[in-house]
Order: sequence, then structure tokens, then C-alpha cells
Amino acid sequence: MIVVMKEGASKSEIERVMQLLQSKGLGTHLSEGVEMTVIGVIGQKEKVRELGIEGLPGVEKIVSVSYPFKLASRPFHPDNTTIEILGHVVGGDEPTIIAGPCSVESKEGLIEIAQAIKASGAHMLRGGAFKPRSSPYSFQGLGEEGLKYLAAAREATGLAVVSEIMEPGLVDLVIDYVDVLQIGARNMQNYALLKAVGKTNRPVLLKRGFSNTIEEWLMSAEYILSEGNPNVILCERGIRTFETYTRNTLDLNAIPVVQHLSHLPVLVDPSHGIGHSRYVTAMARAGVAAGAAGVIVEVHKKPEEAWSDGNQTITLEEFDRLAKQVRDTHRLVREYQLEASRS
Amino acid sequence: MIVVMKEGASKSEIERVMQLLQSKGLGTHLSEGVEMTVIGVIGQKEKVRELGIEGLPGVEKIVSVSYPFKLASRPFHPDNTTIEILGHVVGGDEPTIIAGPCSVESKEGLIEIAQAIKASGAHMLRGGAFKPRSSPYSFQGLGEEGLKYLAAAREATGLAVVSEIMEPGLVDLVIDYVDVLQIGARNMQNYALLKAVGKTNRPVLLKRGFSNTIEEWLMSAEYILSEGNPNVILCERGIRTFETYTRNTLDLNAIPVVQHLSHLPVLVDPSHGIGHSRYVTAMARAGVAAGAAGVIVEVHKKPEEAWSDGNQTITLEEFDRLAKQVRDTHRLVREYQLEASRS
Amino acid sequence: MIVVMKEGASKSEIERVMQLLQSKGLGTHLSEGVEMTVIGVIGQKEKVRELGIEGLPGVEKIVSVSYPFKLASRPFHPDNTTIEILGHVVGGDEPTIIAGPCSVESKEGLIEIAQAIKASGAHMLRGGAFKPRSSPYSFQGLGEEGLKYLAAAREATGLAVVSEIMEPGLVDLVIDYVDVLQIGARNMQNYALLKAVGKTNRPVLLKRGFSNTIEEWLMSAEYILSEGNPNVILCERGIRTFETYTRNTLDLNAIPVVQHLSHLPVLVDPSHGIGHSRYVTAMARAGVAAGAAGVIVEVHKKPEEAWSDGNQTITLEEFDRLAKQVRDTHRLVREYQLEASRS
Amino acid sequence: MIVVMKEGASKSEIERVMQLLQSKGLGTHLSEGVEMTVIGVIGQKEKVRELGIEGLPGVEKIVSVSYPFKLASRPFHPDNTTIEILGHVVGGDEPTIIAGPCSVESKEGLIEIAQAIKASGAHMLRGGAFKPRSSPYSFQGLGEEGLKYLAAAREATGLAVVSEIMEPGLVDLVIDYVDVLQIGARNMQNYALLKAVGKTNRPVLLKRGFSNTIEEWLMSAEYILSEGNPNVILCERGIRTFETYTRNTLDLNAIPVVQHLSHLPVLVDPSHGIGHSRYVTAMARAGVAAGAAGVIVEVHKKPEEAWSDGNQTITLEEFDRLAKQVRDTHRLVREYQLEASRS
Repeated sequence: MIVVMKEGASKSEIERVMQLLQSKGLGTHLSEGVEMTVIGVIGQKEKVRELGIEGLPGVEKIVSVSYPFKLASRPFHPDNTTIEILGHVVGGDEPTIIAGPCSVESKEGLIEIAQAIKASGAHMLRGGAFKPRSSPYSFQGLGEEGLKYLAAAREATGLAVVSEIMEPGLVDLVIDYVDVLQIGARNMQNYALLKAVGKTNRPVLLKRGFSNTIEEWLMSAEYILSEGNPNVILCERGIRTFETYTRNTLDLNAIPVVQHLSHLPVLVDPSHGIGHSRYVTAMARAGVAAGAAGVIVEVHKKPEEAWSDGNQTITLEEFDRLAKQVRDTHRLVREYQLEASRS
Repeated sequence: MIVVMKEGASKSEIERVMQLLQSKGLGTHLSEGVEMTVIGVIGQKEKVRELGIEGLPGVEKIVSVSYPFKLASRPFHPDNTTIEILGHVVGGDEPTIIAGPCSVESKEGLIEIAQAIKASGAHMLRGGAFKPRSSPYSFQGLGEEGLKYLAAAREATGLAVVSEIMEPGLVDLVIDYVDVLQIGARNMQNYALLKAVGKTNRPVLLKRGFSNTIEEWLMSAEYILSEGNPNVILCERGIRTFETYTRNTLDLNAIPVVQHLSHLPVLVDPSHGIGHSRYVTAMARAGVAAGAAGVIVEVHKKPEEAWSDGNQTITLEEFDRLAKQVRDTHRLVREYQLEASRS
Repeated sequence: MIVVMKEGASKSEIERVMQLLQSKGLGTHLSEGVEMTVIGVIGQKEKVRELGIEGLPGVEKIVSVSYPFKLASRPFHPDNTTIEILGHVVGGDEPTIIAGPCSVESKEGLIEIAQAIKASGAHMLRGGAFKPRSSPYSFQGLGEEGLKYLAAAREATGLAVVSEIMEPGLVDLVIDYVDVLQIGARNMQNYALLKAVGKTNRPVLLKRGFSNTIEEWLMSAEYILSEGNPNVILCERGIRTFETYTRNTLDLNAIPVVQHLSHLPVLVDPSHGIGHSRYVTAMARAGVAAGAAGVIVEVHKKPEEAWSDGNQTITLEEFDRLAKQVRDTHRLVREYQLEASRS
Repeated sequence: MIVVMKEGASKSEIERVMQLLQSKGLGTHLSEGVEMTVIGVIGQKEKVRELGIEGLPGVEKIVSVSYPFKLASRPFHPDNTTIEILGHVVGGDEPTIIAGPCSVESKEGLIEIAQAIKASGAHMLRGGAFKPRSSPYSFQGLGEEGLKYLAAAREATGLAVVSEIMEPGLVDLVIDYVDVLQIGARNMQNYALLKAVGKTNRPVLLKRGFSNTIEEWLMSAEYILSEGNPNVILCERGIRTFETYTRNTLDLNAIPVVQHLSHLPVLVDPSHGIGHSRYVTAMARAGVAAGAAGVIVEVHKKPEEAWSDGNQTITLEEFDRLAKQVRDTHRLVREYQLEASRS
């Protein structure tokens, strides 16, 4: 952390700040330049970041320079993390492909979708049983019944299943049915929930909040990791910007940045990311080209009949093409990465 | 809802959309203009908003025109809602003034702050016992011990107390100690939590999520109202924008907009909103001038020693001036409102 | 500037960075902490900020700590700047009130508006002769004819006139007719234009770009000041955010921040800022309560007949009330400021 | 356009709005639903969009449904536009690759870069002679001298050259030296400049403003097209969001959206888009995977010695790899597009 003093701050103001820092056991480095004076603060990261000294006389501002995440950071764990789920390795040589309806609707419909996406090469089936809806009057999901259908689809196809969990009290229930616990964008900073899934060892798909910085996202991963669960898969799903032609702005910049800062695998969700079915395939390709370990997309037999998110859901035929393009693009990127690691 | 067809959409494409809508019991109005064809859709709001027909051939886009909230809306309840808490009326003739430390730290310190803010005219004491922190390594609050200190401060001063609740499982505990349940910005779309507090009749202070639209904020209020709890107080606390000189961007535009759309009282939190103590008083004044029913601010005896949020916390002396300025400004605005209602 | 080295950066990597900095005549301060190494760089601000060394081996990132503006900064000119225009002092004891139609339409209509706003206490008349329109097919303004009408309105009422200038080649023309040259939001970083108006000594109303940071805004002021024109009036007019209920988000946080960083007077434009006539008066009050030196608003006899921006234009009757409320609120704030300066 | 009336709007309020619309020659369609009344407005697009009737009694809001661009729109020109420049076809079978230093520095250095990028397969050389800098104290470019160096580099290598133009008065000068006129992000809504380059027939590279919507971007293209110049190449270069780990947020969502809405070719600029050299190659790949017609990147022999933008500039060796990866990725996407057009 750097304390920037006001131009013209007095010796005694600078002294007071230095003494306060030292009284808390922190090291200080004073740099007096021609135009400004700054104090570098050294010590345990989280302690340094908690200081509220900006209101002291002579202090202009506080500037943070260190990253607050540890277990999630690349220096802590230089190699990429890989996570095996029912035989498929997330973060491995093949791209992870997850697909399924926004909401679980019927058992037969779900199994039909599962069989189709499996034939197209998907590794996992997604489907919402508990749905976070902005309106209390919208369909809230089938609940446990939906989980049962997911389990049935897994049995029928061998696909792993992914479903969202929205409250700590339901971890015990959901974990009986699903292979991957999804934390949705709206709950990315629901710390009670993060701690609860961190206490299991089940893989967690942690979506980025639609207005959360990359740093906050990795800090939420840190919550899960610090409870003892190392199986965190990140998922970029679009951030909120001023643009309104797209539902969100899928932030592919986050992909290489996360890979630089962290060892955790990261997927992209182009369905929520761009929000219109006609653009989903292009963004899936782009996500993998940016370096993502795979994709998660919404599919339905008849999107126009889907109970939720129909506008961003693609058909089974479109999914078949998407899966192929994702595999091709991933193969290309994998080669570049291998080349780079050899040189 | 309006379905906008592509330029050049065929008769049969238009027909198919109309039939699908009608098959769901919705009314349709066809407008064929020179340059484009649009279909107006009429029916129950939430049913209309769920349609996922954008992928159908010939459809260009879907445009929503209605507001999705009902119980929170002004037409549903034309008069302003007022909420009485320990004798003070939120949304009444006097501005509501809430103050206190970011985190509850010690019993004595808290009571001292409570006595000081009471002397300056505050109506309620705020203080965090369960703290949502972006880092798992940061101080997470004193928990139930903190709630006990709040109750002690209430006993010592008669001030109502406000504290944040972060998970549904803790409602029964927290409700024993506090007068107002605060839902923090990060939990604004934690629907399980909204439903849980909606099942009580305790006043709820619902902060706007830092990247939530006004519509989503009112929909979260709708969750609480639709469970049967009418005592919702809204609180604007800053949104996330590109500007980095301020911690957040306190969105005072939301104040008159919310008052137009809804009957619920709305406060402002300039401490989180702008995030630097030196600007808090100006923004508190501006919030009330925009029409807010009051303010909630972070105060501490020694902000530089606060366990959290010290940079945005003001001193007790600064609070005394702020409270006076808020009252003066509110009196002025109240006069204009009375004048307007007479004419 | 601070150079943050990667965890595990080698001695020789650190050396190379230090040597490069020193070879450019910059001072360096090395701080080696437990978890990270940072290099403080000291020297002339702009030189320091130009360094592109992030790609060097071992460098994690570059963090800027100094403000790049000089002539616009508060330390350079500790007292508030005031600017006298036809007898009224911008930044003085009275709030500056500027009003008028979005576009200049007819001579008679403009004079009628000018007389009405003068009677309500306005100090200046605004009106667009050259209009920046996002569509080439929209009305682009009356051009020089519009400037003549403005001059006629000034003659008829004694009000100073403000009008936008959009290209350097028109400075000589526009300056013959208007008292204040307005730089619109879209041209805030049109540097050729900033230099051109900086070469005059005519007051310039510099609107903040709708997506420009406070720092960039002050740097654009710096362009004008550094050419020799000290008469810069800043104007906050709303930034672009994710919220769509309002046309823009009037960023009142910028008011106290700018007053802390700079000595230049700052106005608010609630018409563009919130974009709907029904909310303009509340935001005008809030702007002045936040500390603004005055307001600029769009008024028209019949907003629904205005040639542009009708949705955000208020009537003459509404303006009369707004002007009174702005004066009352400004008086209150002025008292607090005097009190503060006495203590 | 849709006029949404307030719940409870009276018959006479509805009548008044209808009459006003009809008096302006616009068609109206009244839809009275159970919960709300809306009026569809039909007529010439730009006329409809200019109406300022939101302040009329009983009107809740105005909702726009049509796109305002014409010449830039896909329905107007269903086939993709291609633009030939010195033998290379932008928007054709090969991806367009443009590279060069941020600023033109020396003739020899520039020619050296030009020869290197040509060997790596670039089609054009970029380089700034007139630089838009946020600080008046930063290097502003070599001006005409820089243009001469660009012309020399073209002569030496046969590469077409691209350079930014910042004011209408310089069109005649710049056009003598460069093959493609670049409009930078800050000038995307500098309408005088757009009109000036629209009066030439030289290809224009129109960068998206960093906070401009896709609609505004296409409207700026419309300014150029409507003056008679059909040779517009769009370029996405990053938008401004809340994220600070990246300089901007390269918005790849814009690529498929623009291709749906418009026939103009679109490139991506990953250098400005993400702003850190270590991520540029990944984003270049992702841009082409999303469907972009090519890339424009900043390269330098020694980025750490570059006079500007060094942090986002890649080396010549990195560029060589980037160019190959862009070609490979483009080939893949091209195949999918051909497949799709055959089916």
C-alpha cells in the first residue's frame, strides 16, 4: 500500500502517519520527491489493506498495489489446476462442454436434451432446479423434483450434472443429486454460501458476478479454497455495461487476465454473456480462442417454448455445430500453448 | 411487450409469431408501418415478459414496455408509505438520520458513539455484527456478541438499531436484537434472504446492489412485499461506474425516479456512496435535496483506528455538522413539496 | 509512479528496471517487502507517466499515484477561481443560473424565452446554433443565423449568451456573437478545439464527456489553461452507466471531488444529466446542495413542440420555481461554507 | 416509437397525445390493455425519434423500437462490403493485419518496423503523426514530418499506411500521405471531422468511441456514408467499464452484433482494447474467432523505449506469432461461414 501525502503536507503530518503505521507493526518507506511525498507500507497484505487513514490531516489518498488473493494466485500454485469429473478433465487437453436448458422442465424433455448433447460431444448437463428470478412472480424452478430429473438424466446418459445452489441451507440436499455445484452471478458475494460449498469437496462452478471485478471474483474463489475445497472452476458470464444491444457484455479480456493471475480453470458462458441466441456460437468460439477451458451454453429442443431464457437459448442443431467449432478452435489454441511452453 | 419484426419479414413469419402468442392466451395488435412491422402483446405482465421468441425466423428483437413491479409501484399505492420505528416516522416530516460505526467493535465504544449521535439528533444506530467482506482473511464481525452490544446501546440511549443480516438461517437470531434488518448491496438479489425477511414484519432497510438497475431494486422490494411484509425502506448507496476517484458513484438520480415509480421511502448512504470521508457531508446534503427521506452514515470516534471502512468514516464532530445541514436542507425541500401539493 | 515487480522477480530483473529508469534521469526508491518488491519512481510527472516498461521481464504492473494536472490543480491556485461575465460573477456569492432552449429556433421565440428567464432570475441564455446530433438526418442547428438570434436576445435583455462550438475553424465566427464558448460532452477530448478556444480569452464552459473520468476532464481544462486562457468553467452533465431509466447518470459526486482537486468553478446540467423533465428540478437542487456554483437547464415555452430534446426540457413556469429553489439551496450551502472557513 | 401512457391516464390525455402526433403527419395505433395503454407511432424514422412529448400529462415514457441507421444497415445492403486497398481486400478471404508503432518516431525505425511486419504478413503499417493525448504536456506527435516518414515506409515496403486525423482542417494535408484515414475513439462523434472525411473517397478506419453504443457507432459511420464515401471500415478498440485490471474492455460482443446490423467490415484493436502487451495475442485470436475481418496492433522494436503506449505494445517477435495465429483462426472461421452459407 502507498500513502500519498498532499502537496505541502507538513513534517508533523507525515510523522503522524508514519507513527500510526509503525504502531500497528507495519514497515514504512518514505520517498520525498520534488512534487510529492509518498509512504510505502510493508507488511501482511490484508492488514495493510484495512487501514482507514485517509481522513488524517495531510493525507491525499491511499493506493493499493498488492493482490489480495493467495490460494487462488498463480505464484502460490504455478501449474494450472485440473479437475476430474466423471472421467473428464476440466482444464485438460479437451475443452469442457456443458449444455442444457435454463430451467429443468420435464423428465422426458431433459433426458432427450441430455442424449442429444451427449451425441454432440458434451461432457456435462446443466439445468436449473432452483432459479434466481428477478421477479417473485416468475417461475422459480421445480426444486427437488428438478434435481431428481437431473439425476435421472445422468443415469440415462452418464453425463455429469451441474445445477445452481442458492442458499447454504440447501447444500446437503443438492449435493445428493449433482456433480458440480454452481454459484450464480447474483450470489458471487454471498459469503455464507461460499463458505458452505467450501466445506464440501464437490467441484464448484463459480460464475463471475455481473458487476464484479476480476479481483473480487478471485477473492470469492479464495473463500471456497480457504475452507478447504480446491475444486473451483471459474466461469465468465458477462458483465454489465452501458451497451444495450446485448444483454450483458461477455468480458473475454478476463480470460487471459485470470490465467495470468490464477491457476484455476476458467470457462465462458456465451448464452448469458451476449444474451441473444443468434450470437452465441461466435462468442463460444471467441471464448475458447481467448484461452478458456471450455463453454457452458443453454440449449432447448424448442427455445421459443422454453420456460425461461428462450431468447438466448440455441437449438440442438445449433449446439451440434457450436460443439464442433469449439473443439476445433481449442485444438488450435492448445497447439500454440504447447509451442510457447517448449520455447 | 413489443415484438419487432425484421425488415422484410414474410407474412408467414408474422403469422407464426401471432399464432404462438395467441396460443398462450395473449392478445396481439399488429402495426404494419412503411419501414417495419411490430406486434404489440397484451396480457398479464409477467407472462408477457417470459416469452423467448427472439430466435424465431423473422423476429428482430423484443422490447419491453411495462414495469414488472406491482405492490411496490406508485399506481398500486398512490400515497407515500411511512414506517414508524420507536416513535420516529421514516418518510415523515423529519428526515431520518442513522449513524454508527461500520463494524461493532466494543460495547463501551459503541455506547459512547450512540450517546454522541443521539445528542446530535440521530434516530437510529447502525453497526455491523456480521460483515460481508470481500476477503476471507478480513475481520468478519463479532457475530452475536456484536448484536448484544447493539442491544445494550439501544437500552442505554433509546435509539433504534439497524444491523445487516446475511443469510436466511440467521433471521431468528438477529430479529431478537435489532429493530431494522438491513439487506446489504451484495445480497440485494439473494432471493432466499429476501423471502425470509419478507416473512417477518420487521422493517427492512434494502440497499441497492452496486450494479443493479432501479427496476431490479424495486423487484427485490417486491419479493419482500409479496411475502407480506410492507415495511420496506430503500437505500441508495452508490453504483459501480468507470470513475475511480470515488469508491462508488452515489446515484442521486435514483431518488426522484424511485419516488415517481414507487411509494416506498428512500434513504441515501453517502459514506459507501462516495467512499471518502471528506466528501460525505456534501453528498448527504445533496441526497436530501434530491428528495431522500434521510441518510445513513458511518461515524467513529477515531476513524483512523476503525476496524473497517475508516477512509469513508466521519468523526463525531463532523457528524454533528452533517446532521444539522441535513435537517436544514430537508426543511427546505419539504416546503417545496407542500407548496407543490397545494397548487 | 510505482513499479510493482512480480513475486519471485530476480535481482537482475529488478536491476534492469532500475537502470532503465535511471538512464532516463528518474530517481528510484527500492522497497523490498516480504511478499513483493516495488520501485518508487520520482521525477517530472509527465515524464514518469509515459514509461512503457510493463512488458519487461519480472514487471507485474505499473501504478500511477500522482495527479497529472497542474494549472487546474488546487495546490497551484489555492483560492477558488471566479469569472465575471457581464457583471455576474461565476463562482461568487450568487449561484449562476443559465437557461434556454436546446436549439435556437426563431428570433421571436428566443427573445420571449430570454425575457421570461430573466424575469425568473437567470444570468445567461443558452441555445444551440451548431448542434452535435448523433444522426446526420436530424436537425443540425440554424448555424450563423442562430448566432444572430442569440445576439438579438442579448441586446433585448442584457443576458450573456452561451453557445456550443464544434470545430476549431469556427472560433472566429462564434466569438463575434457569444459571451461564453461551450465545449460539449462529445468534444471534451477534441484537442484541436480545446487549443483553439485556449488561444482566446473568452470564458469557456467545458462539459464533462459522458464517459470521461474526473482526471481526464481536468486534463482537458489543462489544455485550455496551458494555452493562456484562465477562464474555464466546468460543467457536470451526466455520465454513462448501466442504468436505463435515466438518460445519463448525473454524477454529483464529481462536484465535491472537483472542488477538492481544482480551483475552477463547476456547474451542473440536470437536463442532460437525468434526461426527463419531471426530475430536473430535484437534480438542480441536489447539484447546488453538493456544492455546485450554479446550473444550466433547458427550457422552452412548449417542450412538446421543441425541435430537439423536448423530453428533458422544462416549461417557463417550472423554471421559475427551479430558479427560486436553486437560490434558496445555494444560500444555505454558502452559509455552511462560510462557517467552515471561519472555524 | 411507442408512447407508454401512465396507468390511469384519462381519455382526454390519450386524445391529446394522438392529436399532437397526427398533427405532425404521423400514423398512430392505439392498444388499450388491461394494465396499460400504449400508442404505436408510425412514420419516417428520424421524425418519429425527435418527438419530445414525455412531459405531456398522462405520458409515462417513450420507447424507441427502430434502428436509426440506413445506409450502414444490413437490410439496405445485404451483402458484406469489401474494400480494396493496394491490392489487399478488407473483408475478403484473408484477414486484414495492420501493425506499427503507437507514434511515428524516426524514419529509420519506422522503415525497420515496416519491413519486419511485412515479412510477418502484415498488409498495412499504422503510426501516429498527430497524437490525441490526454495531457497537453505529453508528446503530441511529429506532425507532417511523421506523415513523411510513413510515406517513406510505404515506398520502401509497398505497405499501405494508416494514420489518425484529428481535425477537419487537416484532411487535405493528411490525404496526400496516407492510404487510410483513421478516426480515433475520442473523435468518433466529432461530426465536423466525419463530414470532412465523408467528402473524400479515401477508406476511413472508424474506431468505436470508448463509451459509445453500437448504435452510435453505426450512426457515425452513417455520417461518412451519407456524405458519399462508402469506404468505411469499423474498428472495435475497447469500451470503458468498471474493470481496472485491463485498460479498456475489448467488446468482442460487438463483432457479431455489428455483422448482423450492418454490412461494413469490422476489425479489432486488441492493443488498446486490453491495454497490456502480455494479453494482446490472445485477444487478437479471440477477435478473429468472433468474426472480425482482421486486427490492428501496436508493435515496436523495443516497447520499453517507445515514446507512447509502451505497456500495450508487443515486440516484432511476438507480432510474428500473432500474425500466424490470426491467419489460422481466420481460416477456421471462414470455413464455418462458408458451410453456413451453403446450408
